Amino acid sequence: MPKWKNTLHEVIYEADTPAGKMFDIILFILIIFSVILVMLESIDDFNEHYHGILLTLEWAVTIFFTLEYIARLVSIKKPLRYVFSFYGIIDFLSTIPLYLSYILAGSQVLLAVRAFRLLRIFRILKLVKFIGEASQLQSALKASKTKIAVFIYVVLILSVILGTLMYIVEGDDAGFTSIPRSIYWTIVTLTTVGYGDIAPQSNLGQFLATVIMILGYGIIAVPTGIVTAEFARSKKSHEEEDEENTHYVHINTQACPNCGIEGHRDDATHCFNCGHVL
Amino acid sequence: MPKWKNTLHEVIYEADTPAGKMFDIILFILIIFSVILVMLESIDDFNEHYHGILLTLEWAVTIFFTLEYIARLVSIKKPLRYVFSFYGIIDFLSTIPLYLSYILAGSQVLLAVRAFRLLRIFRILKLVKFIGEASQLQSALKASKTKIAVFIYVVLILSVILGTLMYIVEGDDAGFTSIPRSIYWTIVTLTTVGYGDIAPQSNLGQFLATVIMILGYGIIAVPTGIVTAEFARSKKSHEEEDEENTHYVHINTQACPNCGIEGHRDDATHCFNCGHVL
Amino acid sequence: MPKWKNTLHEVIYEADTPAGKMFDIILFILIIFSVILVMLESIDDFNEHYHGILLTLEWAVTIFFTLEYIARLVSIKKPLRYVFSFYGIIDFLSTIPLYLSYILAGSQVLLAVRAFRLLRIFRILKLVKFIGEASQLQSALKASKTKIAVFIYVVLILSVILGTLMYIVEGDDAGFTSIPRSIYWTIVTLTTVGYGDIAPQSNLGQFLATVIMILGYGIIAVPTGIVTAEFARSKKSHEEEDEENTHYVHINTQACPNCGIEGHRDDATHCFNCGHVL
Amino acid sequence: MPKWKNTLHEVIYEADTPAGKMFDIILFILIIFSVILVMLESIDDFNEHYHGILLTLEWAVTIFFTLEYIARLVSIKKPLRYVFSFYGIIDFLSTIPLYLSYILAGSQVLLAVRAFRLLRIFRILKLVKFIGEASQLQSALKASKTKIAVFIYVVLILSVILGTLMYIVEGDDAGFTSIPRSIYWTIVTLTTVGYGDIAPQSNLGQFLATVIMILGYGIIAVPTGIVTAEFARSKKSHEEEDEENTHYVHINTQACPNCGIEGHRDDATHCFNCGHVL
Repeated sequence: MPKWKNTLHEVIYEADTPAGKMFDIILFILIIFSVILVMLESIDDFNEHYHGILLTLEWAVTIFFTLEYIARLVSIKKPLRYVFSFYGIIDFLSTIPLYLSYILAGSQVLLAVRAFRLLRIFRILKLVKFIGEASQLQSALKASKTKIAVFIYVVLILSVILGTLMYIVEGDDAGFTSIPRSIYWTIVTLTTVGYGDIAPQSNLGQFLATVIMILGYGIIAVPTGIVTAEFARSKKSHEEEDEENTHYVHINTQACPNCGIEGHRDDATHCFNCGHVL
Repeated sequence: MPKWKNTLHEVIYEADTPAGKMFDIILFILIIFSVILVMLESIDDFNEHYHGILLTLEWAVTIFFTLEYIARLVSIKKPLRYVFSFYGIIDFLSTIPLYLSYILAGSQVLLAVRAFRLLRIFRILKLVKFIGEASQLQSALKASKTKIAVFIYVVLILSVILGTLMYIVEGDDAGFTSIPRSIYWTIVTLTTVGYGDIAPQSNLGQFLATVIMILGYGIIAVPTGIVTAEFARSKKSHEEEDEENTHYVHINTQACPNCGIEGHRDDATHCFNCGHVL
Repeated sequence: MPKWKNTLHEVIYEADTPAGKMFDIILFILIIFSVILVMLESIDDFNEHYHGILLTLEWAVTIFFTLEYIARLVSIKKPLRYVFSFYGIIDFLSTIPLYLSYILAGSQVLLAVRAFRLLRIFRILKLVKFIGEASQLQSALKASKTKIAVFIYVVLILSVILGTLMYIVEGDDAGFTSIPRSIYWTIVTLTTVGYGDIAPQSNLGQFLATVIMILGYGIIAVPTGIVTAEFARSKKSHEEEDEENTHYVHINTQACPNCGIEGHRDDATHCFNCGHVL
Repeated sequence: MPKWKNTLHEVIYEADTPAGKMFDIILFILIIFSVILVMLESIDDFNEHYHGILLTLEWAVTIFFTLEYIARLVSIKKPLRYVFSFYGIIDFLSTIPLYLSYILAGSQVLLAVRAFRLLRIFRILKLVKFIGEASQLQSALKASKTKIAVFIYVVLILSVILGTLMYIVEGDDAGFTSIPRSIYWTIVTLTTVGYGDIAPQSNLGQFLATVIMILGYGIIAVPTGIVTAEFARSKKSHEEEDEENTHYVHINTQACPNCGIEGHRDDATHCFNCGHVL
């Protein structure tokens, strides 16, 4: 790997050197800026007056992102691994829509996908604490995944039944024009959102709606109960681990130039995953 | 029991053999398909254009379900036990509405009850894990049943009182045309659904509504608290059990050909419930 | 105390004898019936057609309740204690409105207060289990009382500030016509009820509303957290008590003829509170 | 420090002497009174009729608050510390808007900031119990701060993506006129507020909305889970501390005349912070 590639890798993929940190911060500001651009363009009044400026700025950002994408490809040993990683796909989707808009008018709205790039902030903040908190959230959610899937599946079946019942009871006048629409209303009610664009008018319909709402009362308690129990548990086991195993090492934000994996110890000289020199 | 009955039983009631598994999957797809059919028929535009096709497909599915129902009756030793079981009733109600629609026009909408058949997925997935999760959910909900019943009863009494109060305060102009309707509004508010089809207009009414909402704030915490405490407890006791008692056996999805009970050990040769040969 | 008073006391205040149980059940049915009467009378259509019947029935129930109230006064040694007890006040308020309606037209709507009498069901069910569950609910709520009061107080102050802010930002056009109304809107939003009768129109207003909603997100977690933690704790301490102290006695539903207190042991011959013979 | 300053300090900053207690209570009543004044002035009908009286009363309260502010400055040794403390800023902002209203018409509406002064009630109540409960609330919220920040950040990114999607799907007819407005709608839905001022009309839009609502279902469980787990933990550790460390001292509400810090022991003769004589 030539030296300039190594330097590029340091700057783009890592945030330990001043240049790398600076690059990450500039990138983050540009991402926020470009998301705001997409929003502003969608406001008709604003777009009419400043269409030229908006378009110019959007092209500037897009060209920067394109160059960055190419640099990322060049400075890593296994580019394909990056291309098909979560961030690789996001990065690609963040540049392509503007080019596409010449073929498919209006597709630049898809640039909003850039918002996903904002998740990079966790890299910039790079606080071990933040990563710990996020991973605790993640593990609690992962542990409750199956239970929540079972729960949502049962709720959906219930919604089909209750939605059909409301469709039979209320009919077209109150906005329950079809079963799918009634199911939409049932979910709006069960989740306690309650837009009110569709609302029961008849006495029987209102009675049924009351039953559904009280049901929703009990139902909303279930995911909360699942997640809370999981949190309380993961919290406890984290604390227990901490007590038993008090060996900590400082982890930096270097990414392996070979396989791209992160989370190396500060004193590491080889990648723990592929053995490549860091 | 003749041999063909045994084979039929294996295919229909069990999911361990390839044929049984295939049957369950085809059945599941057909159930989803038939539920979608009922939904599509309820959309006026769609029904006008494709009424013939929809009806034909519905008859095809219904005939298949009827045959399946008969096969289930034939291939079990105690058919009455199946007929009056939860799934037996659901299966029956899933075939009858279309036949009824010749006597009672429009009754085919009741076919939506087929959605309940989707609960069979837990059999198909047949993952011990899923069953464990579901049963944990069930036991937590069962344990909190009485508490939640007491709670809902008190909430209903409160709703009658508060509903009447709002009826006195607001009167007809704001949509509080009768006490039942005011109670409906109170429950819409207490559960934080808030359609807005009825909303207080007077200052006193809005003040009272504010009090009800803050009350609802506290009230919504109660079922969540009950279920969560129950979850945390059942979780803990599950884990304790696991530690104390680490003898596991693999359970398959065979149903006893005699009594229909499930949950036999892989190495079982007799039903643990009635002693019949498996 | 003459013998007939004793018998009356047994029937009215207790539910252990068949006559007492029968009395309680009839009373409960009559209460439900009378609450439904009040509701039906409030429906204009219904009232116009059946005004005569409704009025007659209401008088019949009211006279029964009046007689019951007198009987309760007569058959207890310290009637004043009953008069000023929770149920004594409810019982009185349940009879008086119809008499008042001759002085103050329309006051019979206050008969809805009878709904509170439905709380007597816990006496009829008289299941120790129910009482246990209810008292567990009560003690958890009592323990979190102060915390919830602090919490609601802070939320109210926040609502005044945020409501005023929205009043300044949105103004009259969007329905924010005065600060009290803006505060009403803020509470509707913070509690996630969201009627939509008042909704921000300007960009700044919608932005602020978004902030309030996300705030409400975090805020709604607080009472739930308080109650849940309390539940989990009371649950645990209940279980610990159960383990340590396994002496149970059966409690019946007799009320002391002298002081009216309940909760006597089955084998009790004297009131544990005043020493009167039971 | 002259004697009258000391007396003034006792009365204004402390609540242990009868005069100090009386002063605090009068102040609290005046704050409530002045907040109500601001509210009443914002009601057009009311303001038209009683403008003169309202203005006079507002001036009376403002002058009292101004004098109080000056007295606070005079009777403390390090006035700057007070000026830039939380309550110092609130106190200043509570007097200035009426003076400003001569330069900037309508700015007296900012007087609503006085509502923050109502937080002083915790000083008046001065119940150690209240302070304990409030501090327990505070510490639980502080502990979950980072987790909730991570959570809200992810929710906001999700809202941008989902809002853009709804903007593409629904378009102008249903009220999704721009991406920012669509994001507003997404947050209204995710938080289960659901005004209904903007609601999806197309089938695809309603389907997407359903997905967002069910997502919101799971999402609302997360902050609740975080806060609850934190509460349960802080509760437990509080109790453990109580058991281990049962040495209590009574704390009074004196504030140090030098540095203004509170929380001194009853038997303290010197400030624990700066050593000044109390």
